[in-house]
Amino acid sequence: MPLLTPSRRLRRTPFSDGVEAAGVSSYTVYNHMLLPTAFMGVEEDYHHLKNHVQVWDVSVERQVKLSGPDAEHLLKVLTPRDLSRFQVGQCLYMPFVNQGGFMLNDPVGLKLGENEFSISIADSDLLLWIKGVAQGYGFDVNVEEPDISPLAIQGPKADELAARVFGDEVRALRFFCFGAFEFRGHKLHIARSGFSKQGGFEVYVGPSAIGMELWDALFEAGRDLEVRAGCPNGIERIEGGLLSYGNDMTRDNTPFECGLGKFAAPRADSSCIGATALMRAAEAGPDRQIRALEIQGPAPACDRAWSLYSGYEWAGEVTSAAWSPDFQCTVAIAMIEKDFLQAGCPLSVQTQSGVLDGCVRPVFWI
Amino acid sequence: MPLLTPSRRLRRTPFSDGVEAAGVSSYTVYNHMLLPTAFMGVEEDYHHLKNHVQVWDVSVERQVKLSGPDAEHLLKVLTPRDLSRFQVGQCLYMPFVNQGGFMLNDPVGLKLGENEFSISIADSDLLLWIKGVAQGYGFDVNVEEPDISPLAIQGPKADELAARVFGDEVRALRFFCFGAFEFRGHKLHIARSGFSKQGGFEVYVGPSAIGMELWDALFEAGRDLEVRAGCPNGIERIEGGLLSYGNDMTRDNTPFECGLGKFAAPRADSSCIGATALMRAAEAGPDRQIRALEIQGPAPACDRAWSLYSGYEWAGEVTSAAWSPDFQCTVAIAMIEKDFLQAGCPLSVQTQSGVLDGCVRPVFWI
Repeated sequence: MPLLTPSRRLRRTPFSDGVEAAGVSSYTVYNHMLLPTAFMGVEEDYHHLKNHVQVWDVSVERQVKLSGPDAEHLLKVLTPRDLSRFQVGQCLYMPFVNQGGFMLNDPVGLKLGENEFSISIADSDLLLWIKGVAQGYGFDVNVEEPDISPLAIQGPKADELAARVFGDEVRALRFFCFGAFEFRGHKLHIARSGFSKQGGFEVYVGPSAIGMELWDALFEAGRDLEVRAGCPNGIERIEGGLLSYGNDMTRDNTPFECGLGKFAAPRADSSCIGATALMRAAEAGPDRQIRALEIQGPAPACDRAWSLYSGYEWAGEVTSAAWSPDFQCTVAIAMIEKDFLQAGCPLSVQTQSGVLDGCVRPVFWI
Repeated sequence: MPLLTPSRRLRRTPFSDGVEAAGVSSYTVYNHMLLPTAFMGVEEDYHHLKNHVQVWDVSVERQVKLSGPDAEHLLKVLTPRDLSRFQVGQCLYMPFVNQGGFMLNDPVGLKLGENEFSISIADSDLLLWIKGVAQGYGFDVNVEEPDISPLAIQGPKADELAARVFGDEVRALRFFCFGAFEFRGHKLHIARSGFSKQGGFEVYVGPSAIGMELWDALFEAGRDLEVRAGCPNGIERIEGGLLSYGNDMTRDNTPFECGLGKFAAPRADSSCIGATALMRAAEAGPDRQIRALEIQGPAPACDRAWSLYSGYEWAGEVTSAAWSPDFQCTVAIAMIEKDFLQAGCPLSVQTQSGVLDGCVRPVFWI
């Protein structure tokens, strides 16, 4: 694995001191910020995540806050997702697309109040897109990156740990809903959400100055729960079919190709950017789609898209892959051409170090 | 130094195979892409760069191409830089600012033709900003990231190496001018430019498929020149005062604070985004400015901004620093509050591992 040269440009987070003290062993860079990728090792982290509880520094999920008279109007221009029943206290997964209907980001939006939203972004500078659009349309709206850094609590014991620190009311949060909880005089939004299938919460921590105080409080409270520092796990998220923008979908893909059609089908009255292109794409149907792919045996690091072939015919590409200890195969996410989508379809996988056997699965692993 | 976990999201380049074969030892991530930071070691690379010639994979300088009837109009909206004498064949350094007059990026623009520009960007998704603005204003312009990846040839023997591969005409290129040169049937733009003070060229290589062919041709032609794979050098660029967006300036800084006032003073008739804010900022004068700072003795890795103090008074922050073998001190770039700008001003530097003595310099080292 190559080394990462530190610099101020790769921003540290309010929790970086804790992450380092916990023995982070590798990083990636996401939204110009450090995101841990392993502590005890990806496989050991994986087993621990499935059995206990972890605290994740996911500050890289930067927030873009929209507020002011035109905030809701702007959001309706930015996403094809139907916002008509979007309530204060809800989270909503909302693809953002460009004029051509291609994916720019797949954020989760939080409705904080009437005309007040926080957009929790994947890895592209959506702040610039939103500000550019707002500027061009002349909207009366404030668009900013606030001093808020998400901290996730994930794993089967997440409810217990969160309740010890934030009170039992946190247990009542429904999936993709958030509420305000107090921590030492600060009101923090906590949502039942997170980038794993093990359950848990995301705490929207701000200002930065309280970051390490909360970090330490969680570790103190969770000692007997075997709490550890963790991070989005490269194996578990593939097993669970959690897509990663930049890996599994890019500006070259439509929402329909990514299985996000139900969040991106513009209604006839929609004024969102890309509406015409999306309607055309919905009608035509996608030429390729994301599927789970099982690969026999271990594979090298998936540091590039791997071409898929059916005989000599190009059949798509693998976009993420990792060895799964639980399923004893390489679990993978692939963008597969429409002729090869059926479960059981055998495909050959061209990696940087040789050809492997793959097979399309009907569903993800969990 | 921490490890970097590879993934498809951290894009490889057309030259990555060559970079790896040449023994890259560390990377950073820039515009969602891999940028080498060292081969033989930052200090050995530094000495070699100053004496010989290096080939740099700077594909991370992604291009944003503007073309169509409103391309020039759009560019005038996007940058305060005066474009009235911008000629085809010229490169122009052009800060982009937001509505508040704060830096979004500091790209170099190439004028390819009337209403045809290529913007060579620093580390932020300027494509999204430009597309957002173009969308909002309803401009008739095509905005895209083409399949072009810059390769730099830098060092005192750069002219000799470039001439051997592209012909002697390349020697006649003036600084920040570009021309079209042929390489095995492909027309490539080559500019006399690059992120070092050692002289040289940037070759705009596309399509990707010819990347390794050109890479190999340069190494073959330069064997007796001691050509090596290199990269923007963390020491040399600080000595030369070459600013890095994300390190030395961010969205929190105006162009005036960054010494870029002459490129960002909007004329009275300017319609660029941020014009009003820039005029106000120009009139008020900057509260802080970038300066060279000499630090006694070696310093730790500058992975965060280091606070500067004059006694107990806050005096600014160091944004980049590295030990200089040639000048036998830690060379640094700092954003310094206006009361402490004078050359010779002693400041204490709070690093993550202790306090060091610093001194404001009148100029950079070269």
